[in-house]
Amino acid sequence: MGRYEQQRNFLKSNFLEFKHVKTDKIKGLPQPAIVKPYASSSEIIDLPEPSEEVVSKSNIYDCIKERRSTRFYSAESLQLEELSYLLWATQGITSTTKTGLTLRTVPCSGATHTFETYLFIMRVEGIRQGIYRYLPVEHKLLFVSELDEMDRKIDAITLEQPFVPHFTKKAAVLFAWSTIPYRSEWKYDISAHKKILIDIGHVSQNLYLASESIDAGACAIGIYDQNLIDEVLGLDGEEEFVLFLGAVGKKRE
Amino acid sequence: MGRYEQQRNFLKSNFLEFKHVKTDKIKGLPQPAIVKPYASSSEIIDLPEPSEEVVSKSNIYDCIKERRSTRFYSAESLQLEELSYLLWATQGITSTTKTGLTLRTVPCSGATHTFETYLFIMRVEGIRQGIYRYLPVEHKLLFVSELDEMDRKIDAITLEQPFVPHFTKKAAVLFAWSTIPYRSEWKYDISAHKKILIDIGHVSQNLYLASESIDAGACAIGIYDQNLIDEVLGLDGEEEFVLFLGAVGKKRE
Repeated sequence: MGRYEQQRNFLKSNFLEFKHVKTDKIKGLPQPAIVKPYASSSEIIDLPEPSEEVVSKSNIYDCIKERRSTRFYSAESLQLEELSYLLWATQGITSTTKTGLTLRTVPCSGATHTFETYLFIMRVEGIRQGIYRYLPVEHKLLFVSELDEMDRKIDAITLEQPFVPHFTKKAAVLFAWSTIPYRSEWKYDISAHKKILIDIGHVSQNLYLASESIDAGACAIGIYDQNLIDEVLGLDGEEEFVLFLGAVGKKRE
Repeated sequence: MGRYEQQRNFLKSNFLEFKHVKTDKIKGLPQPAIVKPYASSSEIIDLPEPSEEVVSKSNIYDCIKERRSTRFYSAESLQLEELSYLLWATQGITSTTKTGLTLRTVPCSGATHTFETYLFIMRVEGIRQGIYRYLPVEHKLLFVSELDEMDRKIDAITLEQPFVPHFTKKAAVLFAWSTIPYRSEWKYDISAHKKILIDIGHVSQNLYLASESIDAGACAIGIYDQNLIDEVLGLDGEEEFVLFLGAVGKKRE
């Protein structure tokens, strides 16, 4: 198999190896928090209830058919109602089990939901530019920090990919999903990591389709400067780090 | 970081390392076939054109809201038109670029589309039980083989997971997506593998939503016997191997 043996093996089911592992869950270690805590003094921004009223293209067949990765956007802002809908479609909680697991608009192995959603908000009506984090339980936003020269920094984070000029420059919002892998490792140990990547694909596809349904375009971004974005978001790069990005903006005429 | 260091690193962007790699594409090596070839003597089954006529729940908001992983199904068969729609929604080609890349109903890094779709067909009107492969360019099915005691073998493949009894026993169809990783390695080398997993998540989410829209339920399956399913499908386990599974069946009343 050669050069890629280790990487290809990562793609395979390792259940036969995993089933002999005594996971932290089986050992009786406490389950990690299902969402990241925050200081009570934090600035919290209310979001409108997610509603289908923002949907202009409601037909799922059309959304699947017409979705394309969109790299150029109009100068139009997103409405706060639209952002609320996109957050709901990608990580919104639709029910909670008796044992406290959250079931969401996206499937996730064992409902471990290892993701936190950070937003680089550039143009959303009624919200000032800056970095925010989505609070799925409350369906609110947490203000994280301002970011000077956001356009330039996003270009640096996405490595000024020459094949996609101004990739996210004109996006209204850049989603940056981090993972806190221990939420899944606690339950799945060495089987966690393959699942985490597949599950962020579930999230990303909902961002694509929900964007399409509100006349916006999305583009997933897998190439980025890991250290730089983790530093910008204040993540330690070990227990939490960025996994994937998605840019969204209104479509051009 | 300890125990999981290597696995966690696999989740991160390795672009800064990758950008110094001379990929096979840059070296001028030929691009691998974008779809798997087949013998001209193969048995080919026509599929109806994908059509929204099969969709009973057309509202995307409702589909996103009401989707749940479904592990128990009715005894009802899928219609061939429904199967055609699910195949289109997960791997259907919606346009082809001048350079021969296929753009599909799902996004894929660099349009490398490393997946082949195998179907364990148990109950689809007008098609006998057996294993099939989807031909996305023709939008047809290729008959691969019969499989005696399909229910029992699928239980063995999915490791008779005790927490999901009869997991796929009553599913009408089991999707089994393989990957041919070189299609992406040729272009992305060591950056290929993370992308492959995220991209199968894109596919899986469309299976979920498209199933929801036709009153069917889906369930992604990441735990399976790698060697057994590769053997059943006749894959070498190196240049092509199964990556992920999705069961689909009509919902119970």
